[in-house]
Amino acid sequence: MNIDHKKLIEKVNTRIEEMKLGSRPPELYEPISYIMSLGGKRMRPLLVLFGYLMYGDEADEVLDVAVAVEAFHNFTLMHDDIMDNAPLRRGKPTVHEKWNTSTAILSGDVMLVKVYEQLMQVIADNTKLRHVLKTFNQAAAEVCEGQEIDMLFENRSKVSHEEYIEMIRLKTAVLLAASLKIGGIMAGASSENLDALYDFGVYMGIGFQLMDDYLDVYGDMAKFGKQVGGDIISNKKTYLLIRAMEKADKDLLNELNNWISSTKFIPEVKVLAVTDIYNRLDIKTETRDLIRHYFDKAYQQLDRLDAPAERKSALKHYADALIKRDH
Amino acid sequence: MNIDHKKLIEKVNTRIEEMKLGSRPPELYEPISYIMSLGGKRMRPLLVLFGYLMYGDEADEVLDVAVAVEAFHNFTLMHDDIMDNAPLRRGKPTVHEKWNTSTAILSGDVMLVKVYEQLMQVIADNTKLRHVLKTFNQAAAEVCEGQEIDMLFENRSKVSHEEYIEMIRLKTAVLLAASLKIGGIMAGASSENLDALYDFGVYMGIGFQLMDDYLDVYGDMAKFGKQVGGDIISNKKTYLLIRAMEKADKDLLNELNNWISSTKFIPEVKVLAVTDIYNRLDIKTETRDLIRHYFDKAYQQLDRLDAPAERKSALKHYADALIKRDH
Repeated sequence: MNIDHKKLIEKVNTRIEEMKLGSRPPELYEPISYIMSLGGKRMRPLLVLFGYLMYGDEADEVLDVAVAVEAFHNFTLMHDDIMDNAPLRRGKPTVHEKWNTSTAILSGDVMLVKVYEQLMQVIADNTKLRHVLKTFNQAAAEVCEGQEIDMLFENRSKVSHEEYIEMIRLKTAVLLAASLKIGGIMAGASSENLDALYDFGVYMGIGFQLMDDYLDVYGDMAKFGKQVGGDIISNKKTYLLIRAMEKADKDLLNELNNWISSTKFIPEVKVLAVTDIYNRLDIKTETRDLIRHYFDKAYQQLDRLDAPAERKSALKHYADALIKRDH
Repeated sequence: MNIDHKKLIEKVNTRIEEMKLGSRPPELYEPISYIMSLGGKRMRPLLVLFGYLMYGDEADEVLDVAVAVEAFHNFTLMHDDIMDNAPLRRGKPTVHEKWNTSTAILSGDVMLVKVYEQLMQVIADNTKLRHVLKTFNQAAAEVCEGQEIDMLFENRSKVSHEEYIEMIRLKTAVLLAASLKIGGIMAGASSENLDALYDFGVYMGIGFQLMDDYLDVYGDMAKFGKQVGGDIISNKKTYLLIRAMEKADKDLLNELNNWISSTKFIPEVKVLAVTDIYNRLDIKTETRDLIRHYFDKAYQQLDRLDAPAERKSALKHYADALIKRDH
């Protein structure tokens, strides 16, 4: 079987375009179509499909489940953008900017309800429905916990790298893990195989978020699509900053803290200076090694996974493409 | 069977106190315990119990379902308070005031997820689970639609009383209706009886919201517990104001619009003046008659309802107590 993830993304995008979660009042439902149409990598629905395709053959049968998980992810983005006061999402105005904060709260709320409605409607088998909803509920609650912890970190002076990894596990990785598992449940996978899929997703998700932190500093702007150094300018507690604070001696820590507390600076100069501190502390190599470590741990789960070799390769191939996304 | 709603409220409140929806991080889950502990009439869980007790005998069996519906209602209050910029809820600081807006958004989000989790956990029968979730999903989406329409009304110059009744049907009545129906589903009621319970809830809910509008102007402050005239001061488009705008002749409409557009006024004077306009237009009698009309329509549903007479009386008795809550 040839699993081409570009074709799968097309399938997902077509289904998203056809999706109609509600219509009246339009002010409530238009923001949903809007945020869903902004695009993105569609990682979560793709992972649902990859999980399913380990044992199933008709990707179309789980497309609505896959799209429901993507809708949940977009609900979290709509609310996160309010909390982060973000003006743009993928280069377009965020929902709370284009409409207003109340509408962004409420459209998000109804979106979450509609995710449940869709999962219920498209999963006819009761045992599968319960298993999918249980998996989904746990991940959904953990995503909220991760987001809250992330916000709390911003008001703390010190965060350990272990705490940080646990935060990104909750905020990012568990939903990727749940996506793979939900696909597996839909295909009737055994609990051992579901665990392997889930763990693959957790490790890949942690690696993926670390990669995001890494690329903000060391990425190729043209390919990354974001301003390099944005996290440095905003003092975001990324893995790189947290490790730098942990590793720096007294003098270097002073230098770093001066940049963090500085309110008057030329952005490019701050980015260069903090990057230089990272380099002196060998943060670049360390982060790259850790990303590799988490992806390797993900790939090790494939040894536990009892599924046809070419289907496992397809998932590995997809993860490889993610890790190599720009360097 | 003697159904004492004061005892039922005690049962509900005890279960709410025992409820543990999550713990870490505390900043995410404490606002949930906080808002749930602020009290209130607990109408929705009581209606779940009343719906169930038409045919069932062990109220304890649906207590967790009842509390889940109350948790959903409190989730909507947490988010509505952000949108309304409300500083107080039942005399205590609102969640976004006591914590912050981001936490109020996120605690609400996780609360909604936990409502689904609880419903799934406590409903073992698959057919009942699907029916309860379907009923709940529809009501939950409609509550969001009603809230959005309510916000849109505030920016419109003209709203008809028919549009207003439809808005309060969505924002308030359908959840009361769904509560009764969910109780009925849990007791195994027939679809005809579920329809009668649902319609009872819709009519009662519309009557109840109209009563709220009425009491804001004509209520006894000591019993109502709120400042009389708050809606008049804030120009809230209540049934009373909408009808006054519809009924007023040119001169009276000018007088009313002057009060609405006035930015400098003594609150008590505005309340007296607008109340006087209402009185001249016979809005007091008309609203009271309409409330009576909706409660009568609710009570008519009991004729359709095939259930023991004393159980139907218990529900009617409870609704009577609500309508007579202060006048």
